[in-house]
Amino acid sequence: MSTSRNYEREFVRTFFTSPTAVEGNEDTAKLLRSAAQLSGMEAPDTWIPDNEDATAPSMRSEGVSNIIEVVSEHGATFPGEIHPRVVWHRDDPSKRYQGFQQMLEIADPGNGAVDHIDGFVIPEVGDIDDWKKADEFFTIVESEHGLEPGSLSMSVIVESGEAELAMGELRSEIGAPSNRLERLFMLVDGEVDYTKDMRGMTPTGGLPEWPELRHNTSRGASAAGLIAVDGPYDDIRDVEGYHERMTENRAKGMTGIWSLTPGQVVEANKAPLPPASGQWLLEIGGETVELTAVDEGYEYAGDEVTLEPTGDDQFRLKTGATDQTLDESALQEVVVDMTAYISGLDDMVDSMEEFEAAKAAGKGAIAMTRSATLIIDGVSVSIQTDRMWDEATYQAAMTPISLFQDVYENRPDQHEELAEMYGASVVERAMAVGTDD
Amino acid sequence: MSTSRNYEREFVRTFFTSPTAVEGNEDTAKLLRSAAQLSGMEAPDTWIPDNEDATAPSMRSEGVSNIIEVVSEHGATFPGEIHPRVVWHRDDPSKRYQGFQQMLEIADPGNGAVDHIDGFVIPEVGDIDDWKKADEFFTIVESEHGLEPGSLSMSVIVESGEAELAMGELRSEIGAPSNRLERLFMLVDGEVDYTKDMRGMTPTGGLPEWPELRHNTSRGASAAGLIAVDGPYDDIRDVEGYHERMTENRAKGMTGIWSLTPGQVVEANKAPLPPASGQWLLEIGGETVELTAVDEGYEYAGDEVTLEPTGDDQFRLKTGATDQTLDESALQEVVVDMTAYISGLDDMVDSMEEFEAAKAAGKGAIAMTRSATLIIDGVSVSIQTDRMWDEATYQAAMTPISLFQDVYENRPDQHEELAEMYGASVVERAMAVGTDD
Amino acid sequence: MSTSRNYEREFVRTFFTSPTAVEGNEDTAKLLRSAAQLSGMEAPDTWIPDNEDATAPSMRSEGVSNIIEVVSEHGATFPGEIHPRVVWHRDDPSKRYQGFQQMLEIADPGNGAVDHIDGFVIPEVGDIDDWKKADEFFTIVESEHGLEPGSLSMSVIVESGEAELAMGELRSEIGAPSNRLERLFMLVDGEVDYTKDMRGMTPTGGLPEWPELRHNTSRGASAAGLIAVDGPYDDIRDVEGYHERMTENRAKGMTGIWSLTPGQVVEANKAPLPPASGQWLLEIGGETVELTAVDEGYEYAGDEVTLEPTGDDQFRLKTGATDQTLDESALQEVVVDMTAYISGLDDMVDSMEEFEAAKAAGKGAIAMTRSATLIIDGVSVSIQTDRMWDEATYQAAMTPISLFQDVYENRPDQHEELAEMYGASVVERAMAVGTDD
Repeated sequence: MSTSRNYEREFVRTFFTSPTAVEGNEDTAKLLRSAAQLSGMEAPDTWIPDNEDATAPSMRSEGVSNIIEVVSEHGATFPGEIHPRVVWHRDDPSKRYQGFQQMLEIADPGNGAVDHIDGFVIPEVGDIDDWKKADEFFTIVESEHGLEPGSLSMSVIVESGEAELAMGELRSEIGAPSNRLERLFMLVDGEVDYTKDMRGMTPTGGLPEWPELRHNTSRGASAAGLIAVDGPYDDIRDVEGYHERMTENRAKGMTGIWSLTPGQVVEANKAPLPPASGQWLLEIGGETVELTAVDEGYEYAGDEVTLEPTGDDQFRLKTGATDQTLDESALQEVVVDMTAYISGLDDMVDSMEEFEAAKAAGKGAIAMTRSATLIIDGVSVSIQTDRMWDEATYQAAMTPISLFQDVYENRPDQHEELAEMYGASVVERAMAVGTDD
Repeated sequence: MSTSRNYEREFVRTFFTSPTAVEGNEDTAKLLRSAAQLSGMEAPDTWIPDNEDATAPSMRSEGVSNIIEVVSEHGATFPGEIHPRVVWHRDDPSKRYQGFQQMLEIADPGNGAVDHIDGFVIPEVGDIDDWKKADEFFTIVESEHGLEPGSLSMSVIVESGEAELAMGELRSEIGAPSNRLERLFMLVDGEVDYTKDMRGMTPTGGLPEWPELRHNTSRGASAAGLIAVDGPYDDIRDVEGYHERMTENRAKGMTGIWSLTPGQVVEANKAPLPPASGQWLLEIGGETVELTAVDEGYEYAGDEVTLEPTGDDQFRLKTGATDQTLDESALQEVVVDMTAYISGLDDMVDSMEEFEAAKAAGKGAIAMTRSATLIIDGVSVSIQTDRMWDEATYQAAMTPISLFQDVYENRPDQHEELAEMYGASVVERAMAVGTDD
Repeated sequence: MSTSRNYEREFVRTFFTSPTAVEGNEDTAKLLRSAAQLSGMEAPDTWIPDNEDATAPSMRSEGVSNIIEVVSEHGATFPGEIHPRVVWHRDDPSKRYQGFQQMLEIADPGNGAVDHIDGFVIPEVGDIDDWKKADEFFTIVESEHGLEPGSLSMSVIVESGEAELAMGELRSEIGAPSNRLERLFMLVDGEVDYTKDMRGMTPTGGLPEWPELRHNTSRGASAAGLIAVDGPYDDIRDVEGYHERMTENRAKGMTGIWSLTPGQVVEANKAPLPPASGQWLLEIGGETVELTAVDEGYEYAGDEVTLEPTGDDQFRLKTGATDQTLDESALQEVVVDMTAYISGLDDMVDSMEEFEAAKAAGKGAIAMTRSATLIIDGVSVSIQTDRMWDEATYQAAMTPISLFQDVYENRPDQHEELAEMYGASVVERAMAVGTDD
């Protein structure tokens, strides 16, 4: 019995659902066909032709045919993974049987699609025994069609309280003799149905934030070696809101997010990648302002801070209600407290290389120094920040690099765009760090 | 063995605890008697004559007698459910035995109260095995008194870490051959004792927010088919704070809240009901302002937004630091982004009916459109918003209607007030939607 | 088999890690030796000579020798507990075996340290079965060295999703016949490695907040009778931020925090202690301002509130955008709503004594009254607040006093500082309340 997961990706940025069969079009496979031909930053890491909620019940049989047709034709060149979503419901055996039949039909080797199918997505799962029912159908599909046991991965949509609880049991259930839950791949939050199941209500009908659900999904994924993906962001025109949600999610350990449109795919593919260059920030009265890179350093061009030399090597610094007169060293200290730095990929690689060299030289911890000249109200202030790095810091700092490496290894179609964003030499160095671990 | 829950309510808005026996009054049943005669919006969905914390230890025997007397006399006409709270403690067998004796006595058919008693509330429960001890006493009480097995419902106060954890196990424990936990009804957070048990401290002695507890209670209720109720809101004069807490709770799927006074009952009964009419909101610099309905549309009367036509079909819009000149269509887009709409019950019913008609006509998804004329700084702007509705949207939108229907079916004494609030025809239509599900 | 925990402390304020062996110094035990000689507010409740992350892998054998040497020499006079941290990793049997060998060596009675060793800290634990592996090594160490079974306490660093989940199982696992997990003492969050394990990322590389982890740790500790301690606060110069974090933690029931420097130890020792004297606060537009004690009462000296008598016994009160004219009683009510009070230890003791006297006189609940004269814009306003106290209020209010008593009983070296802070008579009264429980 295999105990290793059956997927290569360690990170998934984009979970892109596209409607399967849209009634009313003459060609009901049209949207599927255009999704199947995406590439580069426009192509998702995982593409989910959706034969559940996005397809009317009466069209699902045609949806299966369309998936088979489009995946057979375009699957070989599609750069991401393909995981069709079939129907399922923890409370409805007839839905479950339909889901089983849809999988059986799509995975039939006779129709040529299965070579390009990486797995299936099962929505509306319930508690762990319900997950096992789905797993059993995967096993039968593999057995009937002569596929390698465990070769089809299973992802689930967590959209009920019982599924949220089930994520706490995965570690002790995966690998039991009577299941093959090692096939689990993505744990995806589905906040619309979850809100219904939890009976959540908000004044304007918007979705609640559900921070605890997202934490529990991320923790469940971490504990069981899976990948956590957040649900759809409804307001597809609100790019800034989508980015804020992704930033929040990454702080929770949730790297991936559902995309509803090709535009959202591009945003969601780029968002978790490290920035191409570093960025100094100044925090003023609760607000964070980006400094502008100029020849002499990084400049604050706003008027909410005033700074002037008062003679005698003293400086007067006014921000909001505080008004301080400081000598140079005290000024530097205050300015260090007011600033923050977002590392670019090149900075990250520099730091990793520096720590790796120190480790090779037998040092367990080193001070990582960053220097800059900030220009505030026309006055230059040279600052320097130190941070102690030990093995734990190094490994935590590795996360964005690992993500980058995972993308680079699995998405050759994005190499060109990555080289454009970062420059070829930074890409090469980024691929080299951390490999001695 | 029955596996269905034994209660009719799907939602509980108000969990009203009234003291049982107040020492010092000549008539120690006085408060009980007045609570028993409440009706309409002043009567709670569940009334909890409290023979635990609200009754001095020396008065608990008199408390039992008072409950029997008052419930026998007024129970038949009391419009809500009646669930006396008895004593219990996970760490104290003597308290548990007293609680058993109190239930035995109150439920004795000889004294006439039990016909109006729907269940009992057990405070201070511990882990799941402690819940089973209480359940066993319910079973014995039913058996001794010839009541139908499972007919007395059991609600618990969650006020310890172990009880919080136990809520994650309910699904696998309910229905086991050796318990009758199907009798479970409400999971009620008790934040005062929970704070003590968790050793929480705040500078001013106020209760911590405990968002995770409330999430876990709501999730436990959702997974096990129960009802989640939040704890008491101490500051009984702070009506606005009470409403904010309830709004937060509803976003967590917790519809009910403890009420300490008849005034809080009225607020808590009305708060989760849909508003009688819709409300346009304008978001300006983080603040949300309600627009005023006037003849021509909805008016913003404040001075934080200025809008004026500049000729050439252009408009100049200033809010805070941003100053934009826009054509009509761009203006409409910006204004759409600034607005939000709180649906009234009539809007909700309209949308449900529209989707149900579309579904009957074979459509899986439709665009739900809302149009309005907003008047900002004297200038009229016609806007239109679209939202895609599919089956999941429809079902999530059903939650407030289901709540309304549950109230209407179970609280005939509130029919008059509901008709006054919404108008008879909206009430009738609201009772008709969603029934084909 | 003993079922009671083997530690005396009910609260731990400070978890102080000091490096074990710093390479480069001639005397690698120097830092250890200085930490071992701390006392009073500078000495931590639990001191953790760290032979894991703070010690380079090549120095760990010397680290063990240094710990033995320093603890043998200074352990008898060190006022707190001593819990060395050894190496461990849920995924690495060789690390686990090294940790076992380190414990075996340090606890060898032949070298004189073990009499002063209270337990060991095990980092990087995984799920509950991994905790049991560590427990088994403690049992063997005790058996090999003739120590009383269970006499060495075990604390763990929670820095993985599986360890977070394991905390939900402690209650059902502690006390099982094949383990001695009763030795568990502290559950310590380790956010750096946890962030790595969860793959959390933030723009600036700062640690995410992880509120759910801290809740779950606190709940796990509460349910299993253990002590929850928060992880390190990296920015050691940011004293205000450290205090904010501790205030947040206490609202979650987490009393203790990791200290990285002797300066942080002092802050973390003092922070959870009740303030020496009470403090009136005024809330103005979302801000909280401390009032100044003057002869006539408590004065607000700012200019964001104006108050003036208008004749006819009326007062005009202006704050922000609101402008009200009120009679004296309405004014008092508004001012009560604007104020909050942080109790000092003497206030707390007064209230406890008052309630205990009432209870002895047979009363279950009493109104606790607080009166003060506030001086706003030169005008005196006499206010009075009431709060109902029942047994639950009393017990929740006991938490900070219990903490104080725990400190007093276990840290005689801090008696002098406590007497200075509070005065001897308040200390004496604080030690007397609550003891009849």
